[in-house]
Amino acid sequence: MPKPHHHVLVCLNQRPPGNPKGSCGEKGSEALFDRLKAMVKEAGLGDRAIVNRTSCLKHCSRGVTVAVQPDNVWYAQVTAGDLEELCATHLEGGRPVTRLLMPDIPWE
Amino acid sequence: MPKPHHHVLVCLNQRPPGNPKGSCGEKGSEALFDRLKAMVKEAGLGDRAIVNRTSCLKHCSRGVTVAVQPDNVWYAQVTAGDLEELCATHLEGGRPVTRLLMPDIPWE
Repeated sequence: MPKPHHHVLVCLNQRPPGNPKGSCGEKGSEALFDRLKAMVKEAGLGDRAIVNRTSCLKHCSRGVTVAVQPDNVWYAQVTAGDLEELCATHLEGGRPVTRLLMPDIPWE
Repeated sequence: MPKPHHHVLVCLNQRPPGNPKGSCGEKGSEALFDRLKAMVKEAGLGDRAIVNRTSCLKHCSRGVTVAVQPDNVWYAQVTAGDLEELCATHLEGGRPVTRLLMPDIPWE
């Protein structure tokens, strides 16, 4: 099974404090990644979903940024409180979480 | 443009020397990532492709592992010598590089 049903990518880029762009790392993306990875396993999705930490996903000011491939669905300002819905609706239900969708803005 | 035309993911997981699985990191994936990122920029693809480093892509013994999303195309044993073809054929030409495709094997 080299091709995951869902490939979830969480930005863990960390910029120094005070950087005008901000970064997902300073918004707590490492803890969010750890929690999401655990939730995917607990939900029994570990045989068809991969959760990875990544370098900059280019939406620093809208972080924490999460992308779900191969759907090419991008989420903005994801918090720990959103993870349950993200798992249930998108990873289990196959439908994007509309309220979290990244707006159509340029990459940073 | 929140949705890249190609989202290229390079595994940079590093295991300690002697680990039986091996790892992409010990096979030079960091230099490969740096080179690929530079090549994508040089080829003028930087406005539609994102190249990210990731945590473990679950094919340690077949590394360096590279995934190209949203195509969900997975590549095995990628070396620096493969990058030009990967850029020209897949990222510019839109066709997977058949000879590099990951076999249908379980995740590690």
